[in-house]
Amino acid sequence: MSRQASSIARRMSAIRPFQVMELLARAKALEAQGRSIVHMEIGEPDFDTPAPVVAAARRVLDKGSVPYASAAGLPALREAIAEWYRARYGVEVAPSRILVTPGSSGALLLAAGVLLDPGDRVLMADPSYPCNRNFVRFVGAESVGVPVGPETAYQLSPALIDAHWSETVRMVMLASPSNPTGTTIAPDALRAIVEQVQTRGARLIVDEIYHGLTYGRELGTALAVSPEVFVINSFSKYFGMTGWRIGWLVCPESYRREAEKLAQNIFISASTLSQQAAMAAFTPECVEILEARRREFQRRRDFLVPALRALGFDIPVVPEGAFYVYAGCSRLTDDSDRFCFDLLERAGVAVTPGTDFGEHRARGHVRFAYTTSLEHLEEGVERLRRFLG
Amino acid sequence: MSRQASSIARRMSAIRPFQVMELLARAKALEAQGRSIVHMEIGEPDFDTPAPVVAAARRVLDKGSVPYASAAGLPALREAIAEWYRARYGVEVAPSRILVTPGSSGALLLAAGVLLDPGDRVLMADPSYPCNRNFVRFVGAESVGVPVGPETAYQLSPALIDAHWSETVRMVMLASPSNPTGTTIAPDALRAIVEQVQTRGARLIVDEIYHGLTYGRELGTALAVSPEVFVINSFSKYFGMTGWRIGWLVCPESYRREAEKLAQNIFISASTLSQQAAMAAFTPECVEILEARRREFQRRRDFLVPALRALGFDIPVVPEGAFYVYAGCSRLTDDSDRFCFDLLERAGVAVTPGTDFGEHRARGHVRFAYTTSLEHLEEGVERLRRFLG
Ligand SMILES: Cc1ncc(COP(=O)(O)O)c(C=O)c1O
Ligand SMILES: Cc1ncc(COP(=O)(O)O)c(C=O)c1O
Repeated sequence: MSRQASSIARRMSAIRPFQVMELLARAKALEAQGRSIVHMEIGEPDFDTPAPVVAAARRVLDKGSVPYASAAGLPALREAIAEWYRARYGVEVAPSRILVTPGSSGALLLAAGVLLDPGDRVLMADPSYPCNRNFVRFVGAESVGVPVGPETAYQLSPALIDAHWSETVRMVMLASPSNPTGTTIAPDALRAIVEQVQTRGARLIVDEIYHGLTYGRELGTALAVSPEVFVINSFSKYFGMTGWRIGWLVCPESYRREAEKLAQNIFISASTLSQQAAMAAFTPECVEILEARRREFQRRRDFLVPALRALGFDIPVVPEGAFYVYAGCSRLTDDSDRFCFDLLERAGVAVTPGTDFGEHRARGHVRFAYTTSLEHLEEGVERLRRFLG
Repeated sequence: MSRQASSIARRMSAIRPFQVMELLARAKALEAQGRSIVHMEIGEPDFDTPAPVVAAARRVLDKGSVPYASAAGLPALREAIAEWYRARYGVEVAPSRILVTPGSSGALLLAAGVLLDPGDRVLMADPSYPCNRNFVRFVGAESVGVPVGPETAYQLSPALIDAHWSETVRMVMLASPSNPTGTTIAPDALRAIVEQVQTRGARLIVDEIYHGLTYGRELGTALAVSPEVFVINSFSKYFGMTGWRIGWLVCPESYRREAEKLAQNIFISASTLSQQAAMAAFTPECVEILEARRREFQRRRDFLVPALRALGFDIPVVPEGAFYVYAGCSRLTDDSDRFCFDLLERAGVAVTPGTDFGEHRARGHVRFAYTTSLEHLEEGVERLRRFLG
């Protein structure tokens, strides 16, 4: 075997594995040894698939036929998503602009694929969802992490975008609520950014995958601001369907044929069974279940934020959504990686180090996920107290 | 909106939509008008999901929990696939080298992603599966279609690879049985190609997604020839699970961490429900169903090939597998695109033009899929007879 034969594509050297994967593997190993672990590292709801969705899936199985769906998604599901925008946000979105994808991960890949050429740059907050920079790299473009802090609720702002602009910026990515910070973007900041990015001839991608999981005010969709924005969403989080792998992209009219062509080629289609089941996610019966879960998440957040502050973590902005608390730990450690591994090993509490989400002050932050019961959260906080004390 | 803002990534201009999509849309429109259409264009089995798979899915739904799976796939499914290689082919494949993906489409994307840099070239047969060239383009590499004909059973050969070699060739793609030709590659040709490609420091990808659907001899897997080959497979075709979107990649040991890292980022995981259901696809009870289906496909092929020859189509190599007949139509038309649309419009028979699969003699070929009952195939042939007569 020649040397060249074992060579790996250059893009791969820039794509790092997540710390949390190693941490998760270690947590499982400890559990296998009989240790009890409080999981506060997991980025998915701890609830089962809502019963109406399960029932809809059963009805599909009764028929037995599960063929490929059309590349853009089942027409009935695209209609149902359009109706959701109408009912929930009061916004008209043509079903033809909605593409159903294998998770919003698929939507992010499509958006990157139709928009980015090698050499193009993409602005995103640092910290942000770790895969975002890798979608960008995957298509040969370059991600520019913009350091954000509590002053802008860990979100991009018009001034930050301005400061990091260059001729080659082609895309700006926002997420509201954000992973890892749980913070949202204010409506007027969003409007200003939409206009700023459009004026400069670039494109805005808004990740709304944590919509529905806000505790206090309801968020508007970026689609209400402009039909020229790309919006990413998913059945994974609010709808509690992570393992079903289904999400969607809303794209501007002028991109929908391109996005569909790409989906045809790289996905063929999203899971047909998941699509048919997801139709039931919008029923009043299901939404009632989801809203009860939302209230449960809010109770957890309301417990966790003050409890962590009392332990010495810095949480300058109360997270308004998602199920994450991005907590400064610089009064407790100068190395969040080591802190997380120690915490797991010695106290049986799993949390995610900031280094998974970017570079800016990453060693001074950890992410807590409240995707476990209030009882477990209380136990986790108690273990933290002992660990730190 | 500035001009730049509507610009589309350059890669997209090289990715053409499939003719068959337009044809399918027209077929549906005709059916909506009450016309009867015989479908011989569809690339998926016309059978329901096998009952044991449906039953396994039901058991998952009974539990109700459908979380993300690990990026490389559920350990139990990876074990089951390894056992399949052991039982079916007598080959040992470490489960750690098996990655479960969203369809084999996902496997093709991973392989392209870990192997190809911009500028790299990839040799593949012309005609071949149309998405292959687009996976390659998606990551910035270049596909080189090698014209193949009946002399090599429409497959690449060592001599053809030699004739089209250049320093920048990094990957060679085979599919056996092939889409669109249904032909297979002879064991000694495969061995010779494995050695040839490895000696030159490139990588061989073998698409085995139509394995199990052969009529006559059993095929060996390329994994028996060398553990350094990338093998693509899927639950879509032999296992009859297209809409479940689940396939797999077997990669060399030295690539598995890279492939897993990429899967983590761009997919998170394949559908958990589909993975759990797919475990039942390997049971003796299920394989019995699949083998009965295989015999049914063989009956259809055995009817269709002579019937098409009698109508004036050229089929110099009897297809040994998949569910396709790639038929020369140059005695009947000089434009297979127009031929297919006329045939649909005037005779109500849908087939796929050769132009979807490449450029080499594409206007002189059409692809028939025998993914419909013998009765429908007979009706289709009768309509063809009248259309041509
Ligand atoms: C901000 C954000 N976007 C997108 C995703 C992708 O999720 P999915 O592919 O399950 O829709 C995630 C998953 O954690 C996320 O946190
Ligand atoms: C040769 C070949 N490879 C791969 C695929 C992808 O199929 P899937 O993603 O359903 O596994 C197809 C689908 O038709 C095919 O014909």
